[in-house]
Amino acid sequence: MNQLKNDRYLRALLKQPVDKTPVWMMRQAGRYLPEYKATRAQAGDFMSLCKNAELACEVTLQPLRRFPLDAAILFSDILTIPDAMGLGLYFETGEGPKFERPITCKADVDKIGLPDPEGELQYVMNAVRTIRRELKGEVPLIGFSGSPWTLATYMVEGGSSKAFTKIKKMAFAEPKTLHMLLDKVADSVISYLNAQVAAGAQSLMIFDTWGGVLSPRDYREFSLQYMAKIVDGLTRENEGRKVPVTLFTKNGGMWLEDIAATGCDAVGLDWTIDIADAKARIGDKVALQGNMDPSMLYASPERICDEVAHILSGFGEGSGHVFNLGHGIHLDVDPEHAGVFINAVHELSVPYHK
Amino acid sequence: MNQLKNDRYLRALLKQPVDKTPVWMMRQAGRYLPEYKATRAQAGDFMSLCKNAELACEVTLQPLRRFPLDAAILFSDILTIPDAMGLGLYFETGEGPKFERPITCKADVDKIGLPDPEGELQYVMNAVRTIRRELKGEVPLIGFSGSPWTLATYMVEGGSSKAFTKIKKMAFAEPKTLHMLLDKVADSVISYLNAQVAAGAQSLMIFDTWGGVLSPRDYREFSLQYMAKIVDGLTRENEGRKVPVTLFTKNGGMWLEDIAATGCDAVGLDWTIDIADAKARIGDKVALQGNMDPSMLYASPERICDEVAHILSGFGEGSGHVFNLGHGIHLDVDPEHAGVFINAVHELSVPYHK
Repeated sequence: MNQLKNDRYLRALLKQPVDKTPVWMMRQAGRYLPEYKATRAQAGDFMSLCKNAELACEVTLQPLRRFPLDAAILFSDILTIPDAMGLGLYFETGEGPKFERPITCKADVDKIGLPDPEGELQYVMNAVRTIRRELKGEVPLIGFSGSPWTLATYMVEGGSSKAFTKIKKMAFAEPKTLHMLLDKVADSVISYLNAQVAAGAQSLMIFDTWGGVLSPRDYREFSLQYMAKIVDGLTRENEGRKVPVTLFTKNGGMWLEDIAATGCDAVGLDWTIDIADAKARIGDKVALQGNMDPSMLYASPERICDEVAHILSGFGEGSGHVFNLGHGIHLDVDPEHAGVFINAVHELSVPYHK
Repeated sequence: MNQLKNDRYLRALLKQPVDKTPVWMMRQAGRYLPEYKATRAQAGDFMSLCKNAELACEVTLQPLRRFPLDAAILFSDILTIPDAMGLGLYFETGEGPKFERPITCKADVDKIGLPDPEGELQYVMNAVRTIRRELKGEVPLIGFSGSPWTLATYMVEGGSSKAFTKIKKMAFAEPKTLHMLLDKVADSVISYLNAQVAAGAQSLMIFDTWGGVLSPRDYREFSLQYMAKIVDGLTRENEGRKVPVTLFTKNGGMWLEDIAATGCDAVGLDWTIDIADAKARIGDKVALQGNMDPSMLYASPERICDEVAHILSGFGEGSGHVFNLGHGIHLDVDPEHAGVFINAVHELSVPYHK
């Protein structure tokens, strides 16, 4: 069942030899593609798109029809778990996600339960099953979740934030309440990701978008500790094959050693670190994913290729590198530039895998 | 003339012995103080406050009346230079600063001239002179500027930004245009800061708020290079005393060695790096400023003192540390907590200076 036509991505995550460096793009299914916008319009709002397995599958596959990507990633939102916990997720145009009933105190934390991945969250598993079926073994399917800290920032702030005032107030004034919340969310993430694997996900990624707003000590206490708990609780093998786990903390470049020590298979890098330094620091332990500045896709094809060459040369010879952007692709990027990027990775990486 | 009653801050920047660790707070004159709000209301809008030397002096001195701070910092805006270049600075409530005429192309860069610090920017020098006079030698006065890259982000984006799309498009597609702009801004910053010193500033700080959104290579090319040029061009001694220069790049923790190599006297740290690591990396070259998470001021007095103790112990014995927050104080902080913080630094640091 797990016979993949292209398993370059899984092999690179496990540092097994590959013919060229695999590549995918965070938010590769998204608004920079006109076909995505058309499907999204058909679905209505964003969450309706996530909740419709056929349409979620359609947008997941769209970038693969355009580009020779080495992986597909489940189309979903990072806030499905808090929504299933009853916080009332909604989107206001131009404002980002919001919650009707944010977490403000211990009583709110006591009230929330662990959502059933095949209950309130079954729409996600249905999407995973549909996408896996429709992928027909072409490339592996990545499942994902937000990190407990990142999910908690939205749950406590009630939406996006700049200064993270409310959750930091909770972290510093009522740390026990926040730890209770993070622990519940971590348990939910474990069952959620394991259900994604059972439904067909072949690799897992945890997005810690907001861990980088913490001090080193607070990062370990409020974010990394719970990602480590998740890594420990995950199904690491399925269908006779390893299920690699990638942890990504945006602006986490100073804590790579700590992240690698969780037992994850790979560490995601944003563009603020030189991949050569990252490899020197943790390349003996884990694979690396990254790390071109997404804004580089605004540049000319020549400049994009130059940057790809620079990053490939930084990583150097051998397997253990999954090329990606350092964060999601911007919505106003020309899809042709994304194509230039992907082809450049494949073409320019061949000499590093002789 | 430069006889200071308290020169702890200047001494620490030059690693000369002190009796306790000096402390000030970024944005210490600001909206968390009710007396600031009253003066601001009197002035009208924000720029009118900056342009009125008496009122700018008043808000600069307000935090010093409440707390035993070891330095005063000129009350002004980082966007005075682009405003004086004719870009038309204005503020929309809740929106941050904006420019009526942002820089979009080479022709726009060609048009802008170097503002005269005692011409269009004389209001800043008048504020410096007034504050210096009214400080009566109590503590030193810090002058400041934004870094060329940080100023250019506002000039090209037309205001605040999240993804820095326009300036990165320029950096990657028209790097020569951006370099021309950065070079002009750097020249202006040099004459602006040297005029502040001539007017009475006893220390200088350059705020690179947005350098951390660049890759290491792009940071060196578009931000650090121009800060290094400024450091080279500054008056480093005045009134028979050194004028120390501090460079601060938010999210610049991975590039400390490069920042320290510019020849600056001190490097500002945000809270995402452990100060013990920073000292091990660059403590032989420069003094360090920082680095408590500003959100820690939401915590209880006990927790604030615990964090201060942690940071003091991280830096360890000897001079070369100016305590500060890792970024500006939040506007909804209880002023009493700021007082707890400042007193904790003074009291808990004594044993490190025996």
